[in-house]
Amino acid sequence: MPGGKKRIFVSSFSEMTIREFLDQAASDAPTPGGGGVAALAGALGGAMASMAANFTLGKAKYAEHEPYIRRLLADLAPVIDDLRRAVDDDAAAFSGISLAYALPRATDEDKARRREAVTAALSAAMRVPLRVLRRAAEAAETLPDLARRGNANLLSDVEVAAIMLAAAARAARVNIRANSASLDTDEARAAEAEGERLTARTAALADEVGSLIRQR
Amino acid sequence: MPGGKKRIFVSSFSEMTIREFLDQAASDAPTPGGGGVAALAGALGGAMASMAANFTLGKAKYAEHEPYIRRLLADLAPVIDDLRRAVDDDAAAFSGISLAYALPRATDEDKARRREAVTAALSAAMRVPLRVLRRAAEAAETLPDLARRGNANLLSDVEVAAIMLAAAARAARVNIRANSASLDTDEARAAEAEGERLTARTAALADEVGSLIRQR
Repeated sequence: MPGGKKRIFVSSFSEMTIREFLDQAASDAPTPGGGGVAALAGALGGAMASMAANFTLGKAKYAEHEPYIRRLLADLAPVIDDLRRAVDDDAAAFSGISLAYALPRATDEDKARRREAVTAALSAAMRVPLRVLRRAAEAAETLPDLARRGNANLLSDVEVAAIMLAAAARAARVNIRANSASLDTDEARAAEAEGERLTARTAALADEVGSLIRQR
Repeated sequence: MPGGKKRIFVSSFSEMTIREFLDQAASDAPTPGGGGVAALAGALGGAMASMAANFTLGKAKYAEHEPYIRRLLADLAPVIDDLRRAVDDDAAAFSGISLAYALPRATDEDKARRREAVTAALSAAMRVPLRVLRRAAEAAETLPDLARRGNANLLSDVEVAAIMLAAAARAARVNIRANSASLDTDEARAAEAEGERLTARTAALADEVGSLIRQR
């Protein structure tokens, strides 16, 4: 973008070009931030798994895996879409927090209302990276089988899928914590625990995929 | 993209929308593949570092760090740009390999010429992820200082930067190996060694950044 300072407003980050997205991410605009980048990393990981599956279709050598591959592609498509949409949802949730913090706090009643609104907004903002983490973990669960049965020429792309999904999980985990740290609710504690568990699981899957690929 | 099958041809992946890029990455188009995704992950990581730096400027609390932050932003901008351009360069290098493999091999002379062209194309294709890895490592080197001196409200974004740059390095490493495995040259061996070293360094920097952030 000439000058590098123009701010782009579109209905969805999905309709921004790669260049515009990177320029806005690097700028002093509050979104896309780390939560949006986590979601996009997950979508990119899912896309690499889908690519490897697509290159396995219609090849005599992999004919026996065709029903499995078709099911995998059908399962991955909504996961990638949901991760892509989460880039927008993360930005919307961030706006919600800013609006809640901007509420008046002149009276005790104001303060109570503001506190409630902030808790609700932080909880909503915590749910987006939790969803990203769940989706990234769901996509990562498909990878060991794809590493075993997918087109051998695409194994480096399967490994990149595993790396990107593990990074998405880890980045989502950071963003769950960024919101849950200011919350003292059962939901926040449950999100923390699930975040810990799914991040470890996704990292373990990425390591397993790496080992499977080096064996093949 | 309605129907999900339309193939988009643009002069640069930078001008594709996020949606188009993800659709084409997930499809049976050969690019963008794992090498392009590695480069984009690096650009996203660099952008998060730049965002955190931008939010540190003009704040009284961080005034003493302003000269450092301005230098950091100036240093990061060309790194992010180069990583973004590497998405295209990776696709061009992939085409080069396909063209080399398609050369005739009827005579011994043909075969020798083809072998030479394939080696040259694989070497060129190996250099793109090596460049991505170097750039990701270069950006990651800036993060410990940013984690110490940057705006405390942006620490989760600095941590996401570290995670994305480590993922970019790891994914680039996979793509160096994918090309170097078919090469028996001093350059390929040197790239392998540098790949190993810089991937480990970038992972260590990501861990260091995580620790620094938990201390602050």
